Amino acid sequence: MTDALKTGATIGILGGGQLGRMLAVAASRLGFRTHIYEPGAAAPAGDVAHHVTTAAYEDNDALFAFATSVDVITYEFENIPTHALDVLEEHKLIRPGREALRISQDRLTEKDFLSGLGLITADYADCPDAAALTEALERIGTPAILKTRRFGYDGKGQCRIAHVSEGSDAFAQMQGAPAILEGIVDFSAEISVIVARSPTGDVSAFDPGENVHEEGILRTTTVPARLSAAQRMDAVLLAGRIVNALDYVGVMGVELFVTRDGFVVNEIAPRVHNSGHWTQNGCAVDQFEQHIRAVAGWPLGDGTRHVDVVMQNLIGDDVAQVMDIATEPDAAIHLYGKTDVKPGRKMGHVNRVRQ
Amino acid sequence: MTDALKTGATIGILGGGQLGRMLAVAASRLGFRTHIYEPGAAAPAGDVAHHVTTAAYEDNDALFAFATSVDVITYEFENIPTHALDVLEEHKLIRPGREALRISQDRLTEKDFLSGLGLITADYADCPDAAALTEALERIGTPAILKTRRFGYDGKGQCRIAHVSEGSDAFAQMQGAPAILEGIVDFSAEISVIVARSPTGDVSAFDPGENVHEEGILRTTTVPARLSAAQRMDAVLLAGRIVNALDYVGVMGVELFVTRDGFVVNEIAPRVHNSGHWTQNGCAVDQFEQHIRAVAGWPLGDGTRHVDVVMQNLIGDDVAQVMDIATEPDAAIHLYGKTDVKPGRKMGHVNRVRQ
Repeated sequence: MTDALKTGATIGILGGGQLGRMLAVAASRLGFRTHIYEPGAAAPAGDVAHHVTTAAYEDNDALFAFATSVDVITYEFENIPTHALDVLEEHKLIRPGREALRISQDRLTEKDFLSGLGLITADYADCPDAAALTEALERIGTPAILKTRRFGYDGKGQCRIAHVSEGSDAFAQMQGAPAILEGIVDFSAEISVIVARSPTGDVSAFDPGENVHEEGILRTTTVPARLSAAQRMDAVLLAGRIVNALDYVGVMGVELFVTRDGFVVNEIAPRVHNSGHWTQNGCAVDQFEQHIRAVAGWPLGDGTRHVDVVMQNLIGDDVAQVMDIATEPDAAIHLYGKTDVKPGRKMGHVNRVRQ
Repeated sequence: MTDALKTGATIGILGGGQLGRMLAVAASRLGFRTHIYEPGAAAPAGDVAHHVTTAAYEDNDALFAFATSVDVITYEFENIPTHALDVLEEHKLIRPGREALRISQDRLTEKDFLSGLGLITADYADCPDAAALTEALERIGTPAILKTRRFGYDGKGQCRIAHVSEGSDAFAQMQGAPAILEGIVDFSAEISVIVARSPTGDVSAFDPGENVHEEGILRTTTVPARLSAAQRMDAVLLAGRIVNALDYVGVMGVELFVTRDGFVVNEIAPRVHNSGHWTQNGCAVDQFEQHIRAVAGWPLGDGTRHVDVVMQNLIGDDVAQVMDIATEPDAAIHLYGKTDVKPGRKMGHVNRVRQ
């Protein structure tokens, strides 16, 4: 694919959750159809997609049919099985590319990559066995966090170690999954930069947002973040360095800790990001459209922020407040169409706009 | 239906054009699914709907199946055949209600209704035959416009009469369709008010926009309109009077001429309206969501305008400019997914935002 996709083209999206749902809506604004590939039933993205394939990532026939029915493939999550990517890539371009996926699928590889760029991360150490963990705890100190290298999200697959003596218990909790020990970062704030890069190498970033997490789950993002102009510039340049190093195409979420010694990179996500949902009501072009533009070979749009926004996730029972929120001034509601309310489940979000 | 619809409920939409498409997107934001009923193939709304029925308005079985599969029915255009409405209404609530449709489907009924409310319209006269037209031309004077009473849109079904002698030619052009003669209004500007009313009688209006038409087709809407504060208030109150008189539920477009003697009501549309597209990038809650909220029995949202917006329709070949527009600062593109470009066909629109 060298030219920009035209009206009526189909964008294939791996993953049918809320990010896929909002990507599908953004694609529709640019005249594109979407085809969702999702193993689970009742995918939120299916409500707004032109076509849905419900099949496993091991189903080669379904993968082939999907790849040949679309014009380009993107994804809403980074933990796509490698085998599925191999099959898909034989038939159609995948954006963002494999390298970003390879790196972000593994916390150790990601930290090595970021360090290699000269960026600061938390202290970390590979822990292939219990002995390595003990050594790592001695070097990094406690408290520290043991994490599975792969497939963690929203605080899952993590274990906090307050004292060296808790090491073997923590290691057992990983249930044999390869693990990484990370030191605790003493930060004053968590921010994230939603950055986009086009196939021609143009880079554009939204204003950094300031995040509040609770129990490992994002609760709110506030823009503008409490940063100096110099810090804002630094954060954006840092994000630009990451996407340029990867020859990246699409939107990436870059989470940063603000510390006395500068920014520490927490993690990167090669996709649209929960901390970028505020852009839906703050900018002419939001993160979802920006991603679709990049993936479709369009010029990046103007993501200038016009208003202040506080994005609040509606998690689990929070969604019961929706009728009250609906009467608030300047509150924009975004629900994901999930009928099954569970604790910790992201049901929707609200963008509260302030002029 | 007395309670507010909940996540996962389905809104049935009659008509699968761009208005249905943008209604479906707005419905998804509130967690609803949509089911589109449209006789034509490749309906723009079908790309983002959960379900599409492709069937004629005369197909009773399809109408029945549609009505029983949804929780409430709304529409994107006012010229729905009466028979279809009769069938649907037996099985499911239709919002906005039949009275608004009855009135807006017929220019004569509409003008009688507006006059009955004490509102000013263009001079008009029913022209059931050529003799009546001659009489009407004498009373109203020339130039005047002969229009079909039903099924006109975007300037279609209209004939300008410059001199009384042209009356019989004009009458012949109506091809036997019931017609109405309308006097020319000497106006300084055309504006429209997008007004919403909830089932509980709450009324909310967006800022009036100023419209420019060319060849009977809307080209641009600019907000704010060039009106005094008193005029803005008048326009909104006038629109409120109309929806209250109809016990209306949903969004209505009210087109007004600005004249030296005050506002003259041009026409009303019992649906979301092209001149309200600017709200997508100017407000936390846009006209499409406002309509869905009303139809679903939700509280109306806050449609406060945060920025200035110029909405430009992309008509026919205009759509070829999209790649240039994509690079403009603060331009939000909305394409309808139509692959067949025809002169006069609405292909999309751009909202240009100014702070």
